[in-house]
Amino acid sequence: MRPLRAIEYARRHRHRFVAELKDFVRFPTVSSQAKHAADIDRCAVWLAGRLKRAGMGGVRVVPTGGHPLVYAASEKVPGRPTVLVYGHYDVQPADPLREWRSPPFLPEVRGQNLYGRGACDDKGQMFAHVIALESWLMTERALPVNVKCIFEGEEEIGSPNLSGFIDKNNRALRADVAVLSDTRMLAPDRPAISYAERGTLSIELEVQGPEQDLHSGNFGGAVHNPLQVVSDLLAGLHDASGRVAIPGFYRKVRLPANAERDYMARVGPSDEEIMRDARVSQAWGEPGFSLYERTTLRPALTLNGVAGGYQGPGVKAVIPARAVAKLSFRLVPDQDPREIENMFRRHIRRVSPSTVKTVIRASAFVNPVVLRRDHPAVRAAALAYRNAFGSAPVFLRSGGTIPVVGLFREKLEIPTVLMGFALPGDRMHAPNEKFHLPNFYKGTETCIHFLHEMSKASNGLSPAQISEGSLTYGH
Amino acid sequence: MRPLRAIEYARRHRHRFVAELKDFVRFPTVSSQAKHAADIDRCAVWLAGRLKRAGMGGVRVVPTGGHPLVYAASEKVPGRPTVLVYGHYDVQPADPLREWRSPPFLPEVRGQNLYGRGACDDKGQMFAHVIALESWLMTERALPVNVKCIFEGEEEIGSPNLSGFIDKNNRALRADVAVLSDTRMLAPDRPAISYAERGTLSIELEVQGPEQDLHSGNFGGAVHNPLQVVSDLLAGLHDASGRVAIPGFYRKVRLPANAERDYMARVGPSDEEIMRDARVSQAWGEPGFSLYERTTLRPALTLNGVAGGYQGPGVKAVIPARAVAKLSFRLVPDQDPREIENMFRRHIRRVSPSTVKTVIRASAFVNPVVLRRDHPAVRAAALAYRNAFGSAPVFLRSGGTIPVVGLFREKLEIPTVLMGFALPGDRMHAPNEKFHLPNFYKGTETCIHFLHEMSKASNGLSPAQISEGSLTYGH
Repeated sequence: MRPLRAIEYARRHRHRFVAELKDFVRFPTVSSQAKHAADIDRCAVWLAGRLKRAGMGGVRVVPTGGHPLVYAASEKVPGRPTVLVYGHYDVQPADPLREWRSPPFLPEVRGQNLYGRGACDDKGQMFAHVIALESWLMTERALPVNVKCIFEGEEEIGSPNLSGFIDKNNRALRADVAVLSDTRMLAPDRPAISYAERGTLSIELEVQGPEQDLHSGNFGGAVHNPLQVVSDLLAGLHDASGRVAIPGFYRKVRLPANAERDYMARVGPSDEEIMRDARVSQAWGEPGFSLYERTTLRPALTLNGVAGGYQGPGVKAVIPARAVAKLSFRLVPDQDPREIENMFRRHIRRVSPSTVKTVIRASAFVNPVVLRRDHPAVRAAALAYRNAFGSAPVFLRSGGTIPVVGLFREKLEIPTVLMGFALPGDRMHAPNEKFHLPNFYKGTETCIHFLHEMSKASNGLSPAQISEGSLTYGH
Repeated sequence: MRPLRAIEYARRHRHRFVAELKDFVRFPTVSSQAKHAADIDRCAVWLAGRLKRAGMGGVRVVPTGGHPLVYAASEKVPGRPTVLVYGHYDVQPADPLREWRSPPFLPEVRGQNLYGRGACDDKGQMFAHVIALESWLMTERALPVNVKCIFEGEEEIGSPNLSGFIDKNNRALRADVAVLSDTRMLAPDRPAISYAERGTLSIELEVQGPEQDLHSGNFGGAVHNPLQVVSDLLAGLHDASGRVAIPGFYRKVRLPANAERDYMARVGPSDEEIMRDARVSQAWGEPGFSLYERTTLRPALTLNGVAGGYQGPGVKAVIPARAVAKLSFRLVPDQDPREIENMFRRHIRRVSPSTVKTVIRASAFVNPVVLRRDHPAVRAAALAYRNAFGSAPVFLRSGGTIPVVGLFREKLEIPTVLMGFALPGDRMHAPNEKFHLPNFYKGTETCIHFLHEMSKASNGLSPAQISEGSLTYGH
């Protein structure tokens, strides 16, 4: 079986696939907002139907304690490797809505891009795999490897039910490798394989003061203001240089060998590129590291939201009863989310004034992950990119977190190849998210080639070693 | 004319007056929320009708650029002093709604209190004056002094149209003294006259970072976070001891003579009383001053609200594009709101990092006010309290701000007597605001007596001297 006919099929039906992707994006599948539960259900049914039309077997919409996931599996041919294709059809909230040029759930093609919430993260990238399967099945009547699909509806809320699903279906989900397209390339002609992800830990810090809001004229100057306390606490989390000021925070951070830092400097994005992507004119952060290193090799603590007091129009003379901050850590080897949580709790306990009460809620504990690039599945992905994009991928560290990678490693004992097609300017999680259509087309061809290359790499598949020290670089 | 029949009338109709006050509170006259504009109009019409039924002449609902004000005037008798009764029928927003035991605009009597937004601030207290007028007019067919009423619908949003109204009607509004009941007594049996108000200045501080929200996985650690910057800036506004840390802030603060501080310590609320009113177990603030002094003699800077980033349920991995803080200063003699604004701007400019842009919007400039207690109208008020409550009032400084006092001083050249009937626990501006009904009854009688005492104090009325140094104390 050669991929030529499948590639040709994918090219011939491009217009239909873009139209279908628009249908897919049109579902407002915001998993964190209860009001969208029915939209998510409808989207899962649509996706299951789409997999069936692609020719996949065993298609099921699987109910969970939360939003459903969509499962499919090709007929198993013994002796062939099995690829587990993972993706997610839920999306981030679209707010602030007023900053979108076109409505987030009315996808629109402008120039070479498709705009809409989820166009890139992750509907567009996962849809490339669905089309790849169809392209094989409609031209060759079979896939070159065994394929199982898990398309999840809760990735953006931390996959609360995925772990349970894997536990219950551990045998059925057995595979040699997982593949996930939800990461970034460097540029349209510079493909990339992500081999490292930061871990994460989310914190909600609540400061409780007076039993109820007080008049700031009557009590201003005599009662400690929870909003002021939360500002003090937040300000104290970084030192003046931009380093996290929680005692012990950097103790377990392991710096990779110079060879890797040299490789990163050679192939990775420059400070200027990262600043251009972020559309900021000045950088910030820990001294002694490039921006690429700050966002991948180094941990970070980000303030995601603060709410307290009066936020309406005009003025309200109030000392609020409470204030809440939402924070998230990005962690690197060998930081452990539970240890960091404890450090954070100890630190806040030590510096909080006795005039208020602080409450800390932690969630989303994900370990950092690093994958060996000499794994056969990684090599297969590299060849697939070369065939589809015309150039070999570079190996990148990513600053984000993909909890499922750790889950597959832990529960299924398989590595996950991160074969992403997003571009730095695609504004994942932000207003005006888009997917670059040439990447949608070439990404689809990469998926087609990947299945082909995997059929050749039938032996030598073994669990990835999560050992950063043994990484080797250079082509 | 003696007040006995008027007093008797007020007592006889108590139940009706409470029912009418409930009708008054039922209008949701939240002046800061555009959706309540029609409610405010309806309430103004109701109030005008109520003044007519009380027997007042010249009643008018006066349109302004914003919410209307209600005006009334008795027939002028030459040679008698003229009292300008000021009050406001608009109220603060009622949120957070879930903290109310009974809905804010469905007034309810529980025990000796009437609960509802505006029950105390200022509908209940101003209604006492309306009833006092009715009690005179229905029993004596005339008032003992000339009376003009201005009942405003925009006090809680800084009286944006009152100044223009006074300018246009300067001659019509001529009076010898103004009286306003919108301040607190010490306890149900301890009446008080407020002789000092703090000034105010409201600030909105906006920090602008990246053009749009960024993914905190991709950019966390490399882009300066506006929420973090605003936290740093807010934390830097106070030093560790609780003093405002803006250079020059205390330079013009004038400490009164020891005699006044001794008097304050003798008659004013204790630290324990203030903490009990605020329902906090620990105090906070500038060392070296009692809580009463901190909230009246000393200036304060209060953080009223902060908004930035994601505030919904769960987690959103975002570096927000901007963050906004709402702050208010309370100022004391001889601080000038414009000077303080400039100090604040200079300070923020000096300490803001170059990675973000800061925008400062200032509003509500009100000077602090101090009134002589030996003014004939103040003496009349003291006698009125003594007759109604059975004990002489103490003289209190207030921590709040009543902009109209400065306006009357400046535009009409008259002093304003602050003859309040609120209690410390009445929760003005907070959930479960209430008015103590015995204070409503005795307050009404105080208003009746005040008009009588004013008729005896016909001479010697002159503009108050705003000179703190010459205050004398003791009865």
